[in-house]
Amino acid sequence: VDERAPMAWDGWGDPARRAVLGPGVQRLLRRRLGIDPDADPRSRVRLAAVAVPPSRLPEGMQNRLGDIVGPAEVRTDDESRIRRTGGKGYPDLVRLRRGDAAHAPDAVVRPGSHAQVRDVLEACAEHGVAVVPFGGGTSVVGGVEALRGGFEAAIALDLGLLTELVDVDETSLVATVQPGLRGAELEVLLGERGLTLGHVPQSVQYATVGGFVATRSAGQASTGYGRIDDLVEGLRMATPVGDLRLGRAPASAAGPDLLQLAVGSEGVLGVITEVDLRVRPAPQARRYEGWATASFADGLRAIRALAQEGPAPDIVRLSDEEETAVTLAQVTGAKALALRGVLAARRRRGGCLLVVGYEGTARDVRDRRRAAARLLAGRGARHLGRGVGEAWERHRYEGPYLRDPLMDAGVLVETLETAARWSALSQLYAAVRGALRTALGDPVVLCHVSHLYPTGASLYFTFLAPVAEGEEIARWQAAKEAAGAAIAGVGGTISHHHAVGRDHLPWMAAEVGEVGLSALRAAKAALDPAGICNPGKLLPE
Amino acid sequence: VDERAPMAWDGWGDPARRAVLGPGVQRLLRRRLGIDPDADPRSRVRLAAVAVPPSRLPEGMQNRLGDIVGPAEVRTDDESRIRRTGGKGYPDLVRLRRGDAAHAPDAVVRPGSHAQVRDVLEACAEHGVAVVPFGGGTSVVGGVEALRGGFEAAIALDLGLLTELVDVDETSLVATVQPGLRGAELEVLLGERGLTLGHVPQSVQYATVGGFVATRSAGQASTGYGRIDDLVEGLRMATPVGDLRLGRAPASAAGPDLLQLAVGSEGVLGVITEVDLRVRPAPQARRYEGWATASFADGLRAIRALAQEGPAPDIVRLSDEEETAVTLAQVTGAKALALRGVLAARRRRGGCLLVVGYEGTARDVRDRRRAAARLLAGRGARHLGRGVGEAWERHRYEGPYLRDPLMDAGVLVETLETAARWSALSQLYAAVRGALRTALGDPVVLCHVSHLYPTGASLYFTFLAPVAEGEEIARWQAAKEAAGAAIAGVGGTISHHHAVGRDHLPWMAAEVGEVGLSALRAAKAALDPAGICNPGKLLPE
Repeated sequence: VDERAPMAWDGWGDPARRAVLGPGVQRLLRRRLGIDPDADPRSRVRLAAVAVPPSRLPEGMQNRLGDIVGPAEVRTDDESRIRRTGGKGYPDLVRLRRGDAAHAPDAVVRPGSHAQVRDVLEACAEHGVAVVPFGGGTSVVGGVEALRGGFEAAIALDLGLLTELVDVDETSLVATVQPGLRGAELEVLLGERGLTLGHVPQSVQYATVGGFVATRSAGQASTGYGRIDDLVEGLRMATPVGDLRLGRAPASAAGPDLLQLAVGSEGVLGVITEVDLRVRPAPQARRYEGWATASFADGLRAIRALAQEGPAPDIVRLSDEEETAVTLAQVTGAKALALRGVLAARRRRGGCLLVVGYEGTARDVRDRRRAAARLLAGRGARHLGRGVGEAWERHRYEGPYLRDPLMDAGVLVETLETAARWSALSQLYAAVRGALRTALGDPVVLCHVSHLYPTGASLYFTFLAPVAEGEEIARWQAAKEAAGAAIAGVGGTISHHHAVGRDHLPWMAAEVGEVGLSALRAAKAALDPAGICNPGKLLPE
Repeated sequence: VDERAPMAWDGWGDPARRAVLGPGVQRLLRRRLGIDPDADPRSRVRLAAVAVPPSRLPEGMQNRLGDIVGPAEVRTDDESRIRRTGGKGYPDLVRLRRGDAAHAPDAVVRPGSHAQVRDVLEACAEHGVAVVPFGGGTSVVGGVEALRGGFEAAIALDLGLLTELVDVDETSLVATVQPGLRGAELEVLLGERGLTLGHVPQSVQYATVGGFVATRSAGQASTGYGRIDDLVEGLRMATPVGDLRLGRAPASAAGPDLLQLAVGSEGVLGVITEVDLRVRPAPQARRYEGWATASFADGLRAIRALAQEGPAPDIVRLSDEEETAVTLAQVTGAKALALRGVLAARRRRGGCLLVVGYEGTARDVRDRRRAAARLLAGRGARHLGRGVGEAWERHRYEGPYLRDPLMDAGVLVETLETAARWSALSQLYAAVRGALRTALGDPVVLCHVSHLYPTGASLYFTFLAPVAEGEEIARWQAAKEAAGAAIAGVGGTISHHHAVGRDHLPWMAAEVGEVGLSALRAAKAALDPAGICNPGKLLPE
């Protein structure tokens, strides 16, 4: 992971590391989806050919913003605007690949301090300009699309200049960080002091600390390290009516926890300008290993025991039968050790792959690993060895890179995720799979459990279906609607770690009820009376 | 603990179990405070002599409430009203002992269902009657005082009929509980199924589940089991504008966590009518033991290592030098085992007592105990054995019982608590002690750390000072103001687990800022537009 790499404008990740489809995936496309991966790829415009509407930012406003952040940091050139048109969701990329940047912001503004953020908000509130906070730009739910709400113009407030590790309180193990710092960059800076945050979503190379907090994210190791909401100890947020500073103590009974109102607020209440994060000593030891369970249901029982009886591993990823089959097909060409494990797993019909990982001191890793291994073996899981775990580790950030060649091949490819209590998980699993099949014909639907809690777990789905050129967004929409309705219907949450953004608005009423929504809307009206903060996200009209 | 015992109307706890001052405390009063504990006790009126103002509840309203809950559950007799005048804070008791029940509610209403709670709120909103939710009545911050706000009348909404364990989801380990169930009663019901909540504040004999959640409480074992905010998985709240149902999944990224807006809302947003709580298998083994550290500062370093390097015990209580001395004086007469430990501790000049406790499976207790013992011994703490821990365990709920005879003896006796990050804890400790000395002359100030977090800890102060009859509330007020200003001044939280109530209103602006307050006020206005829900609490005017 190069923590400073640029991001492709029309796809995922470092342009220097574009992925190709391996033979396993090619076989899957041919056999299951009837797609010829060797056919001519779908058309894709060049950056210079993207149509950007003229900026509607009034000249006076451009000057006023320039007075605040410096004229060079108010950019209205096409490339700057195209690159902040939206996030990295499937529809975002479909539009850009077509050359459609209709939603490009009217300007990109890069403040260099909390005071500048505050002044920008004040100016935009006064003149009625929407403000869309932009961190790593990795939202997959439309969270950074430059919607204008009822306003004439919108700016992308790019936090890319606010990248300092401001302070590390080594006694309290709290790091104070600016919002624009990428997760991977933060890990490098903390690593120099022997510390870690341990927050590693698949987007960690690009996603920023402010984005983590604003979207209430979880990372691959959150079963052990905790979600970002567990790791946030305090924050500072600039709002149009003034500053919010929260987090005086590690815990408090002084009323509702407003920190948890700010976490997950997705830019609609204001802009996070500083975050206090709980950090830990960097792990001395890491151990990742594979297990095979006889079925997904068996695996669920085993990992529930891990979560409830403990000690839980830091990383747990249980793939269902379909994901296991696809994973095995992909890693066939890998190292011998992994291969042996894989073959052992294959001998079990319909078996499921379980990856578990431990990080910490050598003793802690050894003790927890031993206890978990005893528990898993006692529940009939079969040890596949470290090769499988290490193969997962090597490829852990590569998933999103595969999307671009899949889209080139004409595949509708998307992920969605949810969570529920253990008692509802099988029903939720069946409901989402059923909904996707109904919406998409006979898609490939892969699923894994990636985050464990004592009372429940998350489900992460990846689905692939052939799609005709021009119909991508309509079919995607149909799939999202079907899956969202299924999730809401069986009582799951509409998002476990991707956030609400634009895509999940229709299910917010099911999520928190009309009374919950009215409380949220009231809080927004108090902090952002003009309604300029990220309109069209989080809160349905 | 008798989980169904009645509560003294003018003091703490089971009237059958009134405490007497032991020789150690008597000596302390004589030597340090110049008080003769054998002198005539302070005067205390009988229940029949308490002055209760006439009920101002309009007759029409009484009938309407009677239509909702049944006429027998709308009580306006003196005793019912006196018993819901306030909580169990020092000023509450001072007033009642004098026969002052000026703040008695105009009626006590006991709903039997969620629907009845909702209908009561609707009726009261329509007619402008304040509603004060009343659970165990154990608030020590004025949280259940029947303030009227701008209204003519106030009712105490007593939740004493809502005491069901509604459901236990054994797969997800989630118990659904009605709000009026006492903590100790819940433990009995869960115990019958081999489960526990593990939430044991000192008030657990009387305090209710709804009160735990509404006040964001912590219990003696919260270092291990987590605070109530960690244990709440969902809830149902009746508000004047409709129902709020939260908690679809163990974790979610669907916007701000509104559950954490409801937890700690202290009745000002509505009335909690059902709570989903994370439960666990009841511990097979418990082990409590004492350690001695050379000083409070040394002890802080040792327990910080427990919290940050782990595994932390479930119960950690480190007393400062003064509290250690008083504790040792009290237990002199106890069993030989405890005595031997105590004597060993005394040999260290200025030593501090540390009680740690482990609960869980036998193996888990053994493993964690071994690791923690290694860590403590490595930091110079001396093992005092199980006798000291078991003595703490035997007396763990008795503290509040001592207050009544202390008040009889003319002692101003109060507790207050706060929390901060580890790096600020010593400064916070010094600031509060200094403030109490300034306000009260030469009080006895005892302190212990009772809850550990990786990033900080709580401080719990008990202070005693002589007070002239008639001056109790003025001196108490002076002490609270001095301590509150000190806490706010060094950045601690105004309450770690007692809540805001009426007493901590002046520091809410320091706690969450004016912007935070405006968000809270807006949420209240949305859910309780008439402002009938527990006026005068949590939110300063």
